[in-house]
Amino acid sequence: MTTVEEAGKLILAQLKDYGTESLPFEQALGRVLAEAIKADRDLPPFNRVTMDGIAINYQAVENGILTFKIKATQAAGDEPVAIDELDECIEIMTGAVIPASVNTVIRYEDVAIRAGLASIHVRDIKHGQNLHLQGTDKKQGAVLAEPGLLITPAIISLAASVGKTHLLVKKLPRVVIISSGDELVDVHETPSPYQIRKSNSYTVKAVLQQHSLQPDIIHIPDDPAITKTQIQQCLQNYDVLLLSGGISMGKFDYIPQALEDLQVEKVFHKVAQRPGKPFWFGRYQSGAVVFAFPGNPVATFMCLHRYFLTWLRATLGLPEQLPVYAVLNRDFQFQPPIQYFLQVKLQSNPQGQLMASPIEGNGSGDFANLADTDAFLELPAEKSDFKKGEVFKVLRFD
Amino acid sequence: MTTVEEAGKLILAQLKDYGTESLPFEQALGRVLAEAIKADRDLPPFNRVTMDGIAINYQAVENGILTFKIKATQAAGDEPVAIDELDECIEIMTGAVIPASVNTVIRYEDVAIRAGLASIHVRDIKHGQNLHLQGTDKKQGAVLAEPGLLITPAIISLAASVGKTHLLVKKLPRVVIISSGDELVDVHETPSPYQIRKSNSYTVKAVLQQHSLQPDIIHIPDDPAITKTQIQQCLQNYDVLLLSGGISMGKFDYIPQALEDLQVEKVFHKVAQRPGKPFWFGRYQSGAVVFAFPGNPVATFMCLHRYFLTWLRATLGLPEQLPVYAVLNRDFQFQPPIQYFLQVKLQSNPQGQLMASPIEGNGSGDFANLADTDAFLELPAEKSDFKKGEVFKVLRFD
Repeated sequence: MTTVEEAGKLILAQLKDYGTESLPFEQALGRVLAEAIKADRDLPPFNRVTMDGIAINYQAVENGILTFKIKATQAAGDEPVAIDELDECIEIMTGAVIPASVNTVIRYEDVAIRAGLASIHVRDIKHGQNLHLQGTDKKQGAVLAEPGLLITPAIISLAASVGKTHLLVKKLPRVVIISSGDELVDVHETPSPYQIRKSNSYTVKAVLQQHSLQPDIIHIPDDPAITKTQIQQCLQNYDVLLLSGGISMGKFDYIPQALEDLQVEKVFHKVAQRPGKPFWFGRYQSGAVVFAFPGNPVATFMCLHRYFLTWLRATLGLPEQLPVYAVLNRDFQFQPPIQYFLQVKLQSNPQGQLMASPIEGNGSGDFANLADTDAFLELPAEKSDFKKGEVFKVLRFD
Repeated sequence: MTTVEEAGKLILAQLKDYGTESLPFEQALGRVLAEAIKADRDLPPFNRVTMDGIAINYQAVENGILTFKIKATQAAGDEPVAIDELDECIEIMTGAVIPASVNTVIRYEDVAIRAGLASIHVRDIKHGQNLHLQGTDKKQGAVLAEPGLLITPAIISLAASVGKTHLLVKKLPRVVIISSGDELVDVHETPSPYQIRKSNSYTVKAVLQQHSLQPDIIHIPDDPAITKTQIQQCLQNYDVLLLSGGISMGKFDYIPQALEDLQVEKVFHKVAQRPGKPFWFGRYQSGAVVFAFPGNPVATFMCLHRYFLTWLRATLGLPEQLPVYAVLNRDFQFQPPIQYFLQVKLQSNPQGQLMASPIEGNGSGDFANLADTDAFLELPAEKSDFKKGEVFKVLRFD
């Protein structure tokens, strides 16, 4: 059987570049940057005053001058004004450019102003104080953000500050979520005593929305001809098919046959893991990829995070996520020689460690348990006894 | 001067309930649940088959019967069928209800089927295996999710599964982001050599969007009458005013006077922290709150996360976030007796510890640095020397 690690590698061998598009910068949050953001001017663009107060020539202080005639007042955004004598100063505001004739700012708190005169009442004055000098953050033309970054509020800030009204971002794959089976009814319908509502598609959609995707949802009834037609249409119209359920050995699981008939290449079927063992992954000649997850809600949820989101990040060119580790906070046993994804609640302790408390629920059908947890702890296949205090990788979904 | 802790408490004393609204459940992601989600039926709603295979009466195995006539096939969603004799079985699919006449499921992998007969070729069969019994996850009427929870994909899943097409959620406060000052031009404009672009408003908006808010943005020019009129309109039309800049001691900072004239009660002004010392917070008679952050981008960004988002969570009734701690990974000094919010890059180490690497940049004007970090480390006011290996609280913004 394919191991978790092998499955991950096989999936990451199926990356595709969906191209780029230009968006108003305000709509680019959560997308992946596809161009460099460069400084259009030095940052700061001028020698910038960082305190409200008076601007003087430091030479005056060296000459023992502590009282100054206020020559003018200069707001942020104003053209700089000049002094003509050492005993003159300019009242100046935060964000203003420092005029060439002065070089040091004394904040209001350290000055007494009366009748047009400003007297400094502190001793400790440094040459050039309270200035943020031109270009000390970045030089004009410097790259502020590289392509391949996730666009966070900080990146929005950078784009705004350099006047990038539009950003080139990676296009997103078109995704369809497919459920199947006559035992499923829609959320607004009343299930018979033998039916349940199809919640999985909406869970998957919600997770995808958190990653800026806007997937479509379709449902395929238990009919081999309809199954084939609908899968075929999806392969033509979408880049990614996310199926949940319908891929087991069941007699009415028409999807495996449809995928085979349509010559979707099976990359692997079944992974040495719980939940999610029947996970099927394949590729179509068009480059479309098919993630067929088991129908159990917890299995779908785990596979979506572990496999699909990892693929999504990679295919969009985002850097690999750094691993996160947590400490198991009680003994746990799992005998089968496959990797177990244990549902846990995480909490940071005052030693800076992330502690993982197992909350098991009733297995992969128990979605009620998911809301109480925020990660899966990845317990390696080669062990059976997992001890309190041991550290394992976590797959966060909070 | 107000301490960080006092400021936090004073802000949390200004909570307001904005009421509730009903949303289609698919649009409720990221909102706060304002009703309990209860199980409409037992979960699972029936004794549910968890493997494709054959269903038998365990009595048969006890009687030594290992080969069964296939009486019928029952798909998920079908009405249950019955056997009449112990040597009969039902081919049955995952998700089907187990008929009353049988009680144990043998998966296909452990069965050989030929000419209408199914022969079990394994020994180890347990009574009741491969069933998920009615009500073992939750009983009908049980609360699956309490009011006051953030609506995650797991909550969407719960809502869908119990047929909640609409969810009652907390209404969000109406927020306006206000910038001021003639030194600022909009993103699409070309600044003069003495001007900069107003990036802060867009950064704040992006952070708020990550928390489901859709704020408006306005800009107030350096004019006392216009400032007063616009602030007055905002106090009437919004629940929260988020200002950045214009609240220092500058001569053209007309906002403090406008707030005073309009009888906005000052709760505090200036907090013993860097960045963000000039932070001003007040309340209006209507219950509207005013967060006036310093104009420096890093200060605005820090205050927004530390104070506004904490207030937002509390006012919406979300539980307090559990503290997160990280280990400082090199010595650091900060002399002033105020709390320092140090920009850091976080990384989990194989001991499960969160390690914080300081990335200082050039102070609170240096927003180019924000994109390289993912948290602030909260260094307490009472210390000056912070040693490698010491643990501090972190304020994440990634």
